Amino acid sequence: MSTGRFITLEGIEGAGKSTAARFVAEHLRGLGHTVLATREPGGTPLAERIRALVLERGPEPVTPVTETLLMFAARALHVTNVIAPALVRGEWVVCDRFTDATRAYQGSGRGVDPALIESLAHAVHGALNPHLTLLLDLPVTEGLRRARERSGVASDRFEAEAVSFFEKVRAGYRGIADAEPARVRTIDALRPLPEVQAQVLAALRPLTRGAA
Amino acid sequence: MSTGRFITLEGIEGAGKSTAARFVAEHLRGLGHTVLATREPGGTPLAERIRALVLERGPEPVTPVTETLLMFAARALHVTNVIAPALVRGEWVVCDRFTDATRAYQGSGRGVDPALIESLAHAVHGALNPHLTLLLDLPVTEGLRRARERSGVASDRFEAEAVSFFEKVRAGYRGIADAEPARVRTIDALRPLPEVQAQVLAALRPLTRGAA
Repeated sequence: MSTGRFITLEGIEGAGKSTAARFVAEHLRGLGHTVLATREPGGTPLAERIRALVLERGPEPVTPVTETLLMFAARALHVTNVIAPALVRGEWVVCDRFTDATRAYQGSGRGVDPALIESLAHAVHGALNPHLTLLLDLPVTEGLRRARERSGVASDRFEAEAVSFFEKVRAGYRGIADAEPARVRTIDALRPLPEVQAQVLAALRPLTRGAA
Repeated sequence: MSTGRFITLEGIEGAGKSTAARFVAEHLRGLGHTVLATREPGGTPLAERIRALVLERGPEPVTPVTETLLMFAARALHVTNVIAPALVRGEWVVCDRFTDATRAYQGSGRGVDPALIESLAHAVHGALNPHLTLLLDLPVTEGLRRARERSGVASDRFEAEAVSFFEKVRAGYRGIADAEPARVRTIDALRPLPEVQAQVLAALRPLTRGAA
């Protein structure tokens, strides 16, 4: 029996994470693996309710620390009730966003103490970290142009942020990729789709070759 | 102008916290103070939605760490949007449960790492701690008898817990009172109501005498 792997996709709005996640899942299924495709925040019934709460643009201010705690509360449900059981069953898990998103959005973007984020990551998922993270990277203005072309106007609290916020998020993501080159592979998301897919396949190869 | 004080009420189910909280608020108003009476988890529109999520007895398992993160997410909203602004305006805040409840229920009751709880307490409310905490203490069996007499059957995830769980919670509360005698005053909640109220007034006197 093959051993499952945990693969995450990261990047700013409009980078093409969801499209790439579907492509990765289909590719792995084509190789004969059982794949669980999921997303954050969310991925369980309660976690999806937390997602709705954290994304909606309501009248009540949500502090960066609150946002961080809600992200990790949803993640704790997702890891315990969905991701870990799937990995234990030997499945491959493909997840659209994980803890790197909290590091980039709440840490680099909103200034939440990185030490708090790391202690929460440890409490919530311990040593369960992605085997591979695909960072879809592109200039912020192009990402936002694509995101708004897709969804019309900015539709949630994050999409409504200014360009300067996403510049900090992007810099946060690139910092993670620089610090963990063995885990994080940066994909040039500005290239045409077939070239993006070729980069994704190249990044997957070391994992798929070993676990056929 | 008088300076507001932050007073919390703690204890297991059926200890009479809510009745005592109303009594404290009325007593302080009688002394001419402006009083904000509030409760946890909850106290703001979003925090009340988090309360509903954490208390409901649904099919999805909620881990102790998730429960802890949701409590602190709700608390962060409550402190930032309600409690701290009221104290800044010079009001007295009377709150039914606060961080001691997380220490007792999630820490002592469910075994969540106390170091995680303290780092979250620091991140969420820093040095904003209660000036006075009234711990309404009584034997677990009597508390549960009163709670079930009031609400019929066990109505949320906490009330549905076993006696052994509440014994750990009670021991947790008593440990806090032993460790912080200057802040936490233990009230014998087994006594008849007039005697409980006399104990509450005695505990309040050092605060109300100084701030008239």
